[in-house]
Amino acid sequence: MRQPASEGLAAEMRRLAEASSDASRALSRAQPRAKDEALRAAADAIGRRAKEILAASAEDVAAARAAGQSAAYLDRLALDPKRLDGIAAALREVAALPDPVGEVTATWRRPNGLSVKKVRIPLGVVLMVYEARPNVTVDAAALCVKSGNAAILRPGSDALRSSLALAAAFAEGLAAAGLPAASAQVVPTSDREATFELLQLDDLIDLAIPRGGPSLIRAVAERSRVPVVKHYQGVCHLFLDQSAPLQQAIDLALNGKVQRPAVCNALECLLVHREAAGRLLPAVGRALVDAGVELRSCPTSTTILARAGVPAVTAAPDDYGKEFSDLILAVRVVHDLDGALDHIARYGSLHTEAILTRDLASARRFEREVTASAVMVNASTRFNDGGELGLGAEIGISTTKLHAFGPMGLAELTTQKFVVEGDGQVRS
Amino acid sequence: MRQPASEGLAAEMRRLAEASSDASRALSRAQPRAKDEALRAAADAIGRRAKEILAASAEDVAAARAAGQSAAYLDRLALDPKRLDGIAAALREVAALPDPVGEVTATWRRPNGLSVKKVRIPLGVVLMVYEARPNVTVDAAALCVKSGNAAILRPGSDALRSSLALAAAFAEGLAAAGLPAASAQVVPTSDREATFELLQLDDLIDLAIPRGGPSLIRAVAERSRVPVVKHYQGVCHLFLDQSAPLQQAIDLALNGKVQRPAVCNALECLLVHREAAGRLLPAVGRALVDAGVELRSCPTSTTILARAGVPAVTAAPDDYGKEFSDLILAVRVVHDLDGALDHIARYGSLHTEAILTRDLASARRFEREVTASAVMVNASTRFNDGGELGLGAEIGISTTKLHAFGPMGLAELTTQKFVVEGDGQVRS
Repeated sequence: MRQPASEGLAAEMRRLAEASSDASRALSRAQPRAKDEALRAAADAIGRRAKEILAASAEDVAAARAAGQSAAYLDRLALDPKRLDGIAAALREVAALPDPVGEVTATWRRPNGLSVKKVRIPLGVVLMVYEARPNVTVDAAALCVKSGNAAILRPGSDALRSSLALAAAFAEGLAAAGLPAASAQVVPTSDREATFELLQLDDLIDLAIPRGGPSLIRAVAERSRVPVVKHYQGVCHLFLDQSAPLQQAIDLALNGKVQRPAVCNALECLLVHREAAGRLLPAVGRALVDAGVELRSCPTSTTILARAGVPAVTAAPDDYGKEFSDLILAVRVVHDLDGALDHIARYGSLHTEAILTRDLASARRFEREVTASAVMVNASTRFNDGGELGLGAEIGISTTKLHAFGPMGLAELTTQKFVVEGDGQVRS
Repeated sequence: MRQPASEGLAAEMRRLAEASSDASRALSRAQPRAKDEALRAAADAIGRRAKEILAASAEDVAAARAAGQSAAYLDRLALDPKRLDGIAAALREVAALPDPVGEVTATWRRPNGLSVKKVRIPLGVVLMVYEARPNVTVDAAALCVKSGNAAILRPGSDALRSSLALAAAFAEGLAAAGLPAASAQVVPTSDREATFELLQLDDLIDLAIPRGGPSLIRAVAERSRVPVVKHYQGVCHLFLDQSAPLQQAIDLALNGKVQRPAVCNALECLLVHREAAGRLLPAVGRALVDAGVELRSCPTSTTILARAGVPAVTAAPDDYGKEFSDLILAVRVVHDLDGALDHIARYGSLHTEAILTRDLASARRFEREVTASAVMVNASTRFNDGGELGLGAEIGISTTKLHAFGPMGLAELTTQKFVVEGDGQVRS
């Protein structure tokens, strides 16, 4: 009896993706003005439909609470009037960004007279698979439409009601601008298999972006035939080099760990040069502990912290390489820069790595030798963000080296084709 | 009894990929001079070892002939002294290209004083899966090493002996420059499962490039957890617009179809505007037939050709969208530019599409609306090639929109990381 049901789902997902593919062709040719008008009209529609969106959100939250989800989870899931205003404002900001489609990124001539251009074009259809954050539904739809792509949006099932309500408002914006309704579709079922059916459709979907925790990322990567760009966790390190100034060490450690501990560019591990540990660790540790941070430290750092009266628990081996997403920080004293580079190569997650140093040679080696989507020299890990780096809005931060590494803005949602202009040239 | 064997293969492939991963770290830090020296020394070693390489190739060819492979297949497989010189010359050409690693592709400052750079870095480990063309072993190894990547090379089993012999010469070059032997490894078994084991290792391998026919591409895409950039077939069209000049129409059709009919940027289908069919088709068809081309034409074109005494057979429905890889060309009269665009959207393979026109509006619409890695206006499809477009050497032509679309040269074998330089900035 299950076979027909599953075939029904597969057929349904294919129809949905076909509609996206058709919409993507219209979107790829849409005028910038039409796309921007759609986003602004969607922002207006969210304002008009606030009541029903918040009602849907309340149902999502009630169901998730009844299912025993944590307070932090419910907080990410919940919408309120202020958050809704933020979502609408983000739409208007994306509308105001330059259109990436048609941008000529390079042009040159060949000895035989051919003119060659590289021109940005949309990817086509983008499948976004994410967790229970309904704002992602609108952010991703806006970035996809602006970059000429059709979006298939697959929120965590706990956020389905609010996502569908937001998508209905977004559809009003599309309609107002004369763009196809299928330009942004929320998968209208919480059946887990729907995601896997979509991930088979490499003839219709050009890119899958899973954004979330390990199990989501792994499931998508294992079962997708569609190309995947992962937005995976950040296990971000700050290395305090021998010459690190104390006050900046405190500032960068606090900003990295305390400002928003649950985000992917938050700090998870502090590495300290052994020659600077006695000078830096007591005050840095004290500032962190005073801000409510639990330190999990190596034997050497535990000794130094204890001598200064700063509480710390001994780190377990798996505290290195862990994304705590909480006010917890691993601490380790390393022999030197090489020790820090080795630790990061072993435990880092290719997301964001930072050094604090006054030494030019250390800065240059760290810049060159660390593989991560963003390498920070004397700056907080928290700057690895599309807005902070100047890309405008972002759909997330890629930890896949292919296609886009780091924050993905509008340009990263496009590809480039070659356009060659001649006057009858043939190859000899 | 099969379980242990398979576990043995899996463990063996993991060890091989681990060695590649270790080598990739050394390569990513190698000086440009060392990499170039390795390639030049490898070219010398191929010259010195010519006798044993040609002996290995002769064994490959004898075995493939005994297995009943076609003459065209044996021709692609065979090495001779002239081809070996060509392989060595290609190594020296790659050595002479600029090093892509460390190139700063963009740099800007943020209002808070942060300097942001985008810097090219190697991808890491590249797995190349290809068919029985032993020259690809050396070409791919050279491009990977030059771009700081370790290469795992998986030739078709018929080319294994010659590929191993070439790899031994390449390894001499690596040793001469002090680079790790595992910088370029040929998978030393013809067991088909080895490929699939490698495609599971997304913790060690950063990119898989399958280059070949439909069954190879499909098998890799279906079973890979490693990101895949496909180098798939080219079903390339030339559209003769109403205003197409006759002599150029003949030139482009002949160059596209006849010069090298078996390559991916060869022409497979000629589309002709119905208002120009009577003027163009007789002479274009005659020139093609005189060059040995079999025409498979739609009813309208068959009538026009027959009236001019040009032989043609009626096209079967599946002659459209087919890569003939031979002196066969599908021909179709279309209503207008829209008819050509629809035909290409339906039957094209995203590879190369060309228009011949004098009309500005037609040229602009074709440029904008055709999705293909290269769009040619008044130029032969045969120009979609890394060398012809000015990228230097290429590892192949990507038909995947993600990461690199079109010819993949050295730059396309890298990714970019953000490097952010501050003086203690934190995020507010």
